[in-house]
Amino acid sequence: MEAEMEQQLAPLRARCKEQGDLVRKLKADGAPEIDVKKQVQELKNRKKELEDMVLKLSPPDNFDRAKMTDLIKRRFFYDNSFAIYGGITGQYDYGPMGCDLVDNMLAEWQKHFVIQERMLKVNCSILTPEPVLKASGHVDKFADYMVKDVKTGECYRLDHLIKQHFEKKRADKKTTNEEKEALDRKLTLLEGMTMEEMNKIVKEYAMKSPLTGNDLTDAVEFNLMFPISIGPSGSLKGFLRPETAQGIFVNFKRLLEYNQGKLPFACAQIGNAYRNEISPRSGLLRVREFTMAEIEHFCDPDDKSHPKFNQIADTEMILYSGCAQMDGEPAKKMTIGEAVHGCGLSSLGLLTTSTEVGALDYYMRNRSYILGHYPSKADLTVFETLQKAPPHHLVHATRWYQHMTTFDNKERLAFPGEKKSIIQLTGGSHKGLVANETLGYYMARIHQYLIKIGISPKKMRFRQHLSNEMAHYACDCWDAECLTSYGWIECVGCADRSAYDLGQHTKGSGVKMCVERPLKEPILVDSVVAVPEKGIIGKTFKKDAKAVQEALLSLSSDEAEKMDKALNDSGEYQLNGFKLTRGMVPSFKREQKKVYVEDIVPSVIEPSFGVGRVFYALLEHSFRVRENDEKRTYFSLPAVVAPIKVSVLPLSNNQEFMPFTSQLADALTELSLPVRVDDSTGSIGRRYARTDEIAIPFGVTIDFDTVNNTPHTVTLRERDSTEQVRMPIEEVPVTVRKLADGKIKWSDVTSKWPKFTAQETTK
Amino acid sequence: MEAEMEQQLAPLRARCKEQGDLVRKLKADGAPEIDVKKQVQELKNRKKELEDMVLKLSPPDNFDRAKMTDLIKRRFFYDNSFAIYGGITGQYDYGPMGCDLVDNMLAEWQKHFVIQERMLKVNCSILTPEPVLKASGHVDKFADYMVKDVKTGECYRLDHLIKQHFEKKRADKKTTNEEKEALDRKLTLLEGMTMEEMNKIVKEYAMKSPLTGNDLTDAVEFNLMFPISIGPSGSLKGFLRPETAQGIFVNFKRLLEYNQGKLPFACAQIGNAYRNEISPRSGLLRVREFTMAEIEHFCDPDDKSHPKFNQIADTEMILYSGCAQMDGEPAKKMTIGEAVHGCGLSSLGLLTTSTEVGALDYYMRNRSYILGHYPSKADLTVFETLQKAPPHHLVHATRWYQHMTTFDNKERLAFPGEKKSIIQLTGGSHKGLVANETLGYYMARIHQYLIKIGISPKKMRFRQHLSNEMAHYACDCWDAECLTSYGWIECVGCADRSAYDLGQHTKGSGVKMCVERPLKEPILVDSVVAVPEKGIIGKTFKKDAKAVQEALLSLSSDEAEKMDKALNDSGEYQLNGFKLTRGMVPSFKREQKKVYVEDIVPSVIEPSFGVGRVFYALLEHSFRVRENDEKRTYFSLPAVVAPIKVSVLPLSNNQEFMPFTSQLADALTELSLPVRVDDSTGSIGRRYARTDEIAIPFGVTIDFDTVNNTPHTVTLRERDSTEQVRMPIEEVPVTVRKLADGKIKWSDVTSKWPKFTAQETTK
Repeated sequence: MEAEMEQQLAPLRARCKEQGDLVRKLKADGAPEIDVKKQVQELKNRKKELEDMVLKLSPPDNFDRAKMTDLIKRRFFYDNSFAIYGGITGQYDYGPMGCDLVDNMLAEWQKHFVIQERMLKVNCSILTPEPVLKASGHVDKFADYMVKDVKTGECYRLDHLIKQHFEKKRADKKTTNEEKEALDRKLTLLEGMTMEEMNKIVKEYAMKSPLTGNDLTDAVEFNLMFPISIGPSGSLKGFLRPETAQGIFVNFKRLLEYNQGKLPFACAQIGNAYRNEISPRSGLLRVREFTMAEIEHFCDPDDKSHPKFNQIADTEMILYSGCAQMDGEPAKKMTIGEAVHGCGLSSLGLLTTSTEVGALDYYMRNRSYILGHYPSKADLTVFETLQKAPPHHLVHATRWYQHMTTFDNKERLAFPGEKKSIIQLTGGSHKGLVANETLGYYMARIHQYLIKIGISPKKMRFRQHLSNEMAHYACDCWDAECLTSYGWIECVGCADRSAYDLGQHTKGSGVKMCVERPLKEPILVDSVVAVPEKGIIGKTFKKDAKAVQEALLSLSSDEAEKMDKALNDSGEYQLNGFKLTRGMVPSFKREQKKVYVEDIVPSVIEPSFGVGRVFYALLEHSFRVRENDEKRTYFSLPAVVAPIKVSVLPLSNNQEFMPFTSQLADALTELSLPVRVDDSTGSIGRRYARTDEIAIPFGVTIDFDTVNNTPHTVTLRERDSTEQVRMPIEEVPVTVRKLADGKIKWSDVTSKWPKFTAQETTK
Repeated sequence: MEAEMEQQLAPLRARCKEQGDLVRKLKADGAPEIDVKKQVQELKNRKKELEDMVLKLSPPDNFDRAKMTDLIKRRFFYDNSFAIYGGITGQYDYGPMGCDLVDNMLAEWQKHFVIQERMLKVNCSILTPEPVLKASGHVDKFADYMVKDVKTGECYRLDHLIKQHFEKKRADKKTTNEEKEALDRKLTLLEGMTMEEMNKIVKEYAMKSPLTGNDLTDAVEFNLMFPISIGPSGSLKGFLRPETAQGIFVNFKRLLEYNQGKLPFACAQIGNAYRNEISPRSGLLRVREFTMAEIEHFCDPDDKSHPKFNQIADTEMILYSGCAQMDGEPAKKMTIGEAVHGCGLSSLGLLTTSTEVGALDYYMRNRSYILGHYPSKADLTVFETLQKAPPHHLVHATRWYQHMTTFDNKERLAFPGEKKSIIQLTGGSHKGLVANETLGYYMARIHQYLIKIGISPKKMRFRQHLSNEMAHYACDCWDAECLTSYGWIECVGCADRSAYDLGQHTKGSGVKMCVERPLKEPILVDSVVAVPEKGIIGKTFKKDAKAVQEALLSLSSDEAEKMDKALNDSGEYQLNGFKLTRGMVPSFKREQKKVYVEDIVPSVIEPSFGVGRVFYALLEHSFRVRENDEKRTYFSLPAVVAPIKVSVLPLSNNQEFMPFTSQLADALTELSLPVRVDDSTGSIGRRYARTDEIAIPFGVTIDFDTVNNTPHTVTLRERDSTEQVRMPIEEVPVTVRKLADGKIKWSDVTSKWPKFTAQETTK
C-alpha cells in the first residue's frame, strides 16, 4: 500500500528536487535575485502539487466537517458574533463550551510555559500609537493595495487578483508561449510593484471583477491594521495591535531590570490582536479579532545553548526541513537532539569525530547542569570516550571539561569567550537542522504542550521556513502545523528573530536596548572628555547653564572629538541649540579607560501561538462518532482541558435521590471541579450522549442501589471507553479531582473498583 | 474622640437631612422635574461637604502614596504604556507582578463565582457593529460636547467646563444674588442642554480656556466610544465595546437554549472594554483601555428569590442606603438578611407581625431547599413560631409551608402564581433596603470575594444609588466602593436592570428575547388564522408562492384580524411587499385556543467589576511599611492572589548549596507554585526585603545547617509576621502548596514546627 503510494509520488518528488537543485545552484552562483525568485515560485508550485497528492493518496479518516459544525453550533462552542443583528464575517463569539475550553488551554499553557520555565509575564495596551508600529515595521509590512467592484463595492486585494488572473490566463490554451513568459516575468515582479505599476496591469489586461465582471476602481492603499484615533483631539494616531509581541519589546528595559540585568530570560503575553482582513474565511482560521499567546526569550546572541536541553533531547517529532522540501522528500520523525546536534545520545559510545564531540558537548553541559558540579560515573565514562577523540579536539574539550567540573553554572556563564571557542570548535564542522538549542528546546516544549492538550501527534509536524519565505529578520523559523480538513495549517510559529526587534525599537525610540555583558578581560579604550569653563557658561546661559554643563558631560568620546575639532576650525559649536565658543570649553581631557563590560543586543527566540487555530485543530482532532451509532458524535478532549470535568445524573426524579445529587455536586464543586447536573427526564443513555457531546470526561450515575443500600455507592463512567465502575459515593470527588489533574489514570480506577456493566441506550 | 467628631458633624448631617426632606417633599407633591433636580443638586453638594468632613476628621492611616508609587514603578507592577516612545496618558502596561496579581484575582473570581454558582461563560467580540450599540443606548448615552483651546488644541468636556466656570463665579464675592440665582438655574438645566444652548453660554459668559486663557472653539459632538470601521470597504461602522455586558445580551437566546430553556441562569464574561476618555486621570482609576468582569443573572421578573440566600444571610456588610444619604446619616453595618427582609434570623423567636413573617418566609424557603423535602426539627420549631402569627397570615403561611414540605424545589418553581401570592402576602407590608434576594445574594458574594482577595473590610462599603442618579432602567443599584487616597471609589456595581437590555435588543434586532413560563392553569385565547387559496396564490406569485404562504401562516392573530378588515375595506393588503387580494385569502378561521405557557422577558441582575479599580484599591489596602524601618515597604497580599508564592534563598554561593536550591525550586514548581530563586550576594535580610516588596508570602532559606546536617532542614518564613520555623526540606513543597491554597494557616505551621529566631538585617 505504502510502496504503491510512493511509486505514484516518486515523479512529483523528483520534480521538486530538480527545481530545488536549480534554486540552490542559482543561489550558489550568485544569480540575480529576480531569477532566484522566479524559480522559487516554481518550486512552491511543485511543492504544492506534491503535498496535494500526498493528502489525496492518504487513507481517509472519515472526518465529517458538517457533522462537527452541527455539534459546535448546537451546543454553542462558538458561533458568528452578533447573529441576531445578521452576524458579521470574521468575528466569532465563544459560548460556554468554547470559552471554557480556550481558558483551560491557556491555563495549561501558563503552567507548561510560564510557571515551569519561570517566565515573566506582561499585559500591555492594545491601542498602540503609530510610531511604535512604524518602528516595528508593521505600518509598511501590512500595507496592501485594494480595488473595488465599481457596482457592488466588493473589495479585493489587488496582488491576489492579478495573481489569479495571470494563473488563469497562463492555463488558457490560446495563450502563446511568449505571452506566458511575459506573465511569468510580471508575476515574479509582483511583490515589489508600486500601486501605479499594478494599476497599469489592470488596464493592460482589462481585468474585471471576478464575481460580477464589473469594472474595477483604481487601487487604493489599505493597511491590514485597524486605524484608531486615541484621545479627543484626533491628533494621536494609532492602531489596534496586530500581534502581542511588540508590547514585550517596548518594555524590554523594565523587564531586564526586573530580572536584575541578567540574560537569558523569557517573557510571555496572552492577549487579543486585530487584523482587518479583506476577506475573512475558513471559519476560525482567518478572523479579524483573535487571541495570541506569545513568548519572547531574550538570550546572548553568542550563546544560544539551553541548560535544560538534555531534558527534552529525546523528544521525537516530525520535522519537515527546508532541505527536505526542496528535495521533494517527506517529513521525517527524529529526536530534537538529533535535529539540533546531528546525532543522538544513543550513539555516544562511538564518538570519534568532531561532529560527535559536538553531541558530547551538549550532553555533558547538561549533565553537569543537572548534577551540580559533581562528576558522576556516567560523566567519567563520557570523559573516557572523549580521551579517544583526536588530539586537537581533546585539548580544548578536556580543558572545558575541567572547567565544567570546577565552576558552577553561574561562573561558567561569566566566561562567554571561553565558551564560545568551545562551541565553535565542537559544533563548527557540523550544522544541525535546527539552528540552536534554545530554538530546539522551545520546539520540543511546544510539541509536548500540543500533545498534552489533545492534538494528534500523527496530524502535527514542524515545517521549516524556506530561507526565502522567512521574514527578513529571522535566522531560523519552524511552524508547528496541524493537519485539518482545510489542509495543513500553521498553528504555532517558533522563530529565532535575532536582534531585529530590539534594534528597530532602539532606532524608533532613541532608547538603547542592550545588556551589559562582562568581558573576559577588561580592555582599554580611548576617552575624550570636555573640560568646561563654568564661570563663562554660567554668565552666558544663566538658568540654562546647568543644562549646558550636563550636555557637555554626557557627550560620547566621538562627539567630544568632533566638537574639539569644530571649535578649532570655526571657533563655535551648536550643542542642543546652544552656541558654544572655545572660551567656554578651552580644553578636552584625553585618557585611556579600562572597560569591563560590553553592550550587546540580545537575540530573541519567539514561540507564537495562534490560540483560535490551535483550538480549531483540537476540535477536529478530537471529534468522534460512536461505533454503531452515527448520530452519537462527541469530542474526546483530555480531562485537563475539558470544559466541564464531571456530570451527575440521578436515574430518577424521585425525591429520595435529591440529597445524594446535591451533596455530591456540592462536594465536587468544593474541589473547584466544574460540574453539570442533568436531572432531566431523558433515559440515562440519552443523557450520557448529551454529556459526551460537550466532552465531559467523567459521569456519575445515582441509581436505586445508591439510595437503598449502604454503603451508598454510585457508578463512575469514562467517556471514551464508556466503561463504568461502582464505588462509594464519598470516594468520587477526590478520585475525579485526581483524574482531572492527570495524577491518576482511568486504568488506576478500573483496577481499584469493580466494573459495572449496564446497557447504554439512547432510546 | 468619636463623640467629639460626631459633634462637629452634627450640623452637616442636619443640613443634609433638611435638604433630603425637601427633595422628598417635592417628589411627594409631584413638583416639576426641574425643581426636583435643582434641589437634588444642592443635596449632592451637602452630601459632599459631609463626606469630605468625615474623611478629614477620621484618624490618619499614614498611607503614603508617593512611597507606594515608587515601589510599584521600581518593581514593575504597572507603568505607563509605550514609555520609551514618550508614554501615553490613560493607558498602562501591567508588568510581571501586576499581570500575575490580576490573573490570580480573576482566577479566584472564576472559582468564587463561575464554578461555585455553576455559571455559563462567554467570550465575545470587542469590535461591535453600530446597530448593537445604538439599541443598547450607548451611541446616544455616551455622546458629549467638547471644545478645544484654539491655540494649544487641548480638549475639554463642555459641560464640565461650564460647571467649573459657574462654580467659580458663584464663589466670587462680586457676584450678586440675582446673578447667583441665574447661574443656579442654568446649572440645573445643563444636563439637558443642546449644543447650541451651551455654545450660547460660552459666549454670554466670555468663557476662556481654563489653563491658558485662550479662546475656545465652538463645541463639537464627541462620543466616548472609539469608532472603528470593520472590513475593507469602510461601510460597516462600529465601535470598540464600552462594556462587556452587551455580548451576553445579544447571545441570550443561545444561552437560554444551552440552559435547556430554563430560568434562572447566570452568564459571566471577562474581557477588555474601551472608552475614549477626554482627560484620563487618577492613574488606573480612569483609563481608556480596561478589563471588566461582568455577570448577567437572568431570572423570573416575578420571582427574584434566591435558593442559596440563607447561606449568606448572616454576612455583615456596611450599607450606605439612599435613605441614609438623604438623612445625612452614616453608613450602617448590618446583615444582608436584615437588609433584604427587614429583620435578621436572630430575632426569629419573637415573630408576630407580617414583617417578621417575611423574614420567616425566606428562612424557611431556604431551609427547605437545603434539606430537600424533609422537615427537620429546626423547621418544626419555626413552624410552631408561625402558629403564633396573626390568623390572616397563618392561613397562607401554613398552606405554603405544607406545600414546601410536600414538593421538591423544581415543582415549586412550576407554580409561580402560588408563590407570588405568598410573597406578596408575607413581604407586602414591609420593604427591605435591598430590592430582592438575588440582588442581596450577589452583594454578599461580592463582599466575600473582595475580602478574600485582600480588600480591607473597614475600607469598603455598599452605597445605594439615589433613585435620581440611577440609570433610567435600573430598579435598584448598589456600588461596592473602596476607600483610597483618592476618596471612595466605585469598584463593583451591582444592579437590578429589570428587563431593559433584552427589551432594547428585541427592538433593535427584531428578534424576540423571552422565556416560556408555564401557566398555573391553561387559558383560552382568541385565535385568527388565514385560510389561503393556494391555487390562486401559486398562479399569481409563481416561485414566490411558498414565501407568501409561509408569511400568511406566521401572521399573529392581531395581524390576521387587521388583514381581514383591510381586505373587506379596500379589497387588497400589502404583505412583505406582495399585494394580496380577497380572492387569495377568501376567509379567516376564528377559534379559541388553549395556551399553557406565557412569554416573559427575564429580569437581569448585573454584578459588574472594574478589574483595574479593584486591583488599585487592593494595592493601597495592602501597602505596608515595616515598623522601625521606614524604607522597608511591602504589600501584604493574601497568598491566594500573591503573584509568586514562595522564594528560595541560599545563604551562601558555596557550591554545596546548589543541589539543595535547585531541587527544592524544582519540587515547588512541580506543584505549579510560582517560585523565585534569589541567589544574589545580598544579605539574607536584604533579600527578604526584596521578596517582601513583591508580596511573596513565604520564603525558604537554605543555610549551613541544611547542607551539613541530616535530616536536611530549612527555615520557612511568613512575610507579614516575619516569623520563621525550621522544618525538613522535603516537607516544604506540600506545606507551601496548602498554605497558598488556604487549606492550612500559618498558625498551623508554627504549632507543628519549632520556631526559628534569627536577626533579620538589611545591612
